[in-house]
Amino acid sequence: MFTVTVRDHLMIAHSFRGETFGPAQRLHGATYLVDATFHRPGLDGDNVVVDMNLAAREVGIIVKALSYRNLDDEPEFSGTNTTTEFLAKVIADRLAVRVHEGALGPAARELTGLTVRLHESHIAWADYHRAL
Amino acid sequence: MFTVTVRDHLMIAHSFRGETFGPAQRLHGATYLVDATFHRPGLDGDNVVVDMNLAAREVGIIVKALSYRNLDDEPEFSGTNTTTEFLAKVIADRLAVRVHEGALGPAARELTGLTVRLHESHIAWADYHRAL
Amino acid sequence: MFTVTVRDHLMIAHSFRGETFGPAQRLHGATYLVDATFHRPGLDGDNVVVDMNLAAREVGIIVKALSYRNLDDEPEFSGTNTTTEFLAKVIADRLAVRVHEGALGPAARELTGLTVRLHESHIAWADYHRAL
Amino acid sequence: MFTVTVRDHLMIAHSFRGETFGPAQRLHGATYLVDATFHRPGLDGDNVVVDMNLAAREVGIIVKALSYRNLDDEPEFSGTNTTTEFLAKVIADRLAVRVHEGALGPAARELTGLTVRLHESHIAWADYHRAL
Amino acid sequence: MFTVTVRDHLMIAHSFRGETFGPAQRLHGATYLVDATFHRPGLDGDNVVVDMNLAAREVGIIVKALSYRNLDDEPEFSGTNTTTEFLAKVIADRLAVRVHEGALGPAARELTGLTVRLHESHIAWADYHRAL
Amino acid sequence: MFTVTVRDHLMIAHSFRGETFGPAQRLHGATYLVDATFHRPGLDGDNVVVDMNLAAREVGIIVKALSYRNLDDEPEFSGTNTTTEFLAKVIADRLAVRVHEGALGPAARELTGLTVRLHESHIAWADYHRAL
Repeated sequence: MFTVTVRDHLMIAHSFRGETFGPAQRLHGATYLVDATFHRPGLDGDNVVVDMNLAAREVGIIVKALSYRNLDDEPEFSGTNTTTEFLAKVIADRLAVRVHEGALGPAARELTGLTVRLHESHIAWADYHRAL
Repeated sequence: MFTVTVRDHLMIAHSFRGETFGPAQRLHGATYLVDATFHRPGLDGDNVVVDMNLAAREVGIIVKALSYRNLDDEPEFSGTNTTTEFLAKVIADRLAVRVHEGALGPAARELTGLTVRLHESHIAWADYHRAL
Repeated sequence: MFTVTVRDHLMIAHSFRGETFGPAQRLHGATYLVDATFHRPGLDGDNVVVDMNLAAREVGIIVKALSYRNLDDEPEFSGTNTTTEFLAKVIADRLAVRVHEGALGPAARELTGLTVRLHESHIAWADYHRAL
Repeated sequence: MFTVTVRDHLMIAHSFRGETFGPAQRLHGATYLVDATFHRPGLDGDNVVVDMNLAAREVGIIVKALSYRNLDDEPEFSGTNTTTEFLAKVIADRLAVRVHEGALGPAARELTGLTVRLHESHIAWADYHRAL
Repeated sequence: MFTVTVRDHLMIAHSFRGETFGPAQRLHGATYLVDATFHRPGLDGDNVVVDMNLAAREVGIIVKALSYRNLDDEPEFSGTNTTTEFLAKVIADRLAVRVHEGALGPAARELTGLTVRLHESHIAWADYHRAL
Repeated sequence: MFTVTVRDHLMIAHSFRGETFGPAQRLHGATYLVDATFHRPGLDGDNVVVDMNLAAREVGIIVKALSYRNLDDEPEFSGTNTTTEFLAKVIADRLAVRVHEGALGPAARELTGLTVRLHESHIAWADYHRAL
């Protein structure tokens, strides 16, 4: 089994609802390092899991669409706690759509899974893994 | 599948028994970075895997109880090689007890696994994974 | 010449004014890793630059007072671009006050300088250095 | 389940064939950080997954044999795209041979898998995992 | 005194002349992480050391011009050992030209120095510092 | 001004005397990452600051002589608090002796300074800088 990972990042504002979040209920923000991992049982004829340039481009497009925003004001996240683990799923799911649309090229057709890790600091991070 | 990880660290002294350890048979020590990872199939109503503050607090309590000690002198480790992989299991098992006791809050009831990674240096680390 | 550095972090929201900031003019946020470095020509009788526990405590207090806030709403930053480099200076200056007040203990009396580095992502950071 | 990982690195030149590689079709090079991970269900009598010194030695020998070379000129890689994911497999397979030959000592007999991660930069890496 | 740093990377092939280099006399390659640091005594009206977007863009252009090449074949480096420390100077000097040409914007006019750090691996790096 | 840095590590046990150290008065230990930085105004005829292989070898010898020991039992450190900052000086001073003895080769004759950084964890480190 092979994987390839590319890293990008995004910076957003948001707040959380629920006493469990303590001071993070206030409007604050985060830099998220985004590690997008592509899984595939074997390599293609070029000896790659996926075209890394296309992979980085698509991760970049998804990340840019979320960047420099207050997620509390985005209609799609209305009333939602945009936690690190939740955002990992958002990015993975958007990436899965792009894989299925063919945006990552022919090698991506045989990808079997995606993992997205978001680091919220040097001491905390979250992963979401899904099949393709 | 989701995971959330929190990082802490501890500093201890110990020695190893067995020729395989070479100079590490002498009394020496280590800083261990501790990455505790919590696994869960889905998110709770707050959109979290586990209350990250409780998770960090509990990891901190376990780490503190081991810190600034010569493990060779701790009765519980008497005659035991407290290797990196062994200590990863010690921390994971203690954390599992706390999860089962409810110390990590209601969201933790649906955790399915724990992974503890201990980094002993920038070039060596060990993991222990267990079910919950 | 000796230095000692302790690391902490904070998470805030803010926006910038000025075309040069492009999309960062929108409300967004950041996780800042904070590296506070204490400079001293020699060591004290305990062989330290500064009491590292007191240093970490004071950095933590300053960081906590800024954390989980929208800096645009803080009166002290009203109309100010709270850039990475500017916030490095804010933290260094607050730390300098605490050094002068004696909060870092007797060893801190002979500190000659402070450097604060703020990492805004894995690919960008800023430093501010000042005398004490 | 336990794992132990040791890190090493290598520096090589190579070029890729195929339009998908863009400018990387030209002769260029890379520093690869190599993380070799050994999997084992339990610990041996010394409380280790594998003798870490032997593991590091064997990874070092494999890495050294590839280092400071233009892989395009190595007969074994003739006409092959020596991508990051492909080289991860090369190193894992060579390491598996050494495990089976007994070079990693008696504890290694019960290893069940190997993962090799190669980092080609701070923003891209690849893994290969195999059974033993 | 303030600094701002942006990170990029490049991948090249080269060889060295001189017995001191041992096996690195053979054609090999490297990934260099490039940390470009801009020094300035104070901040501008926007509270920045330099427009970080322009800084990143200019570093990117310089890095791209060197990337995916065999430096042994570049006329400008003919007969030159393109060591890590030498390449740090090449990048810093090219960046200095761009600062003087105004490519980093008006804030850059008051920059007083540049430092370029090149990491050749996780265990070795080199810096070059110059005035502006 | 140029610098070159090489990284190594050591693992030791020790204890501290003085109330300021709190629980670190007990016998414990640390992994220290050691970054040894060599300063030189210009490059030699090979375009290097220092022969990096010799530099790494000499740092390795010094580090090995301290490794896997209880520093409390070493006569040279009797009654001494072997703090991170103190050990940075010990390593720098031993390295300076080797530079002056010619062990780092002819390029090292024009080195003007040494900096040794010791990381005791991911959140604390110390530097010592000296002239040569």
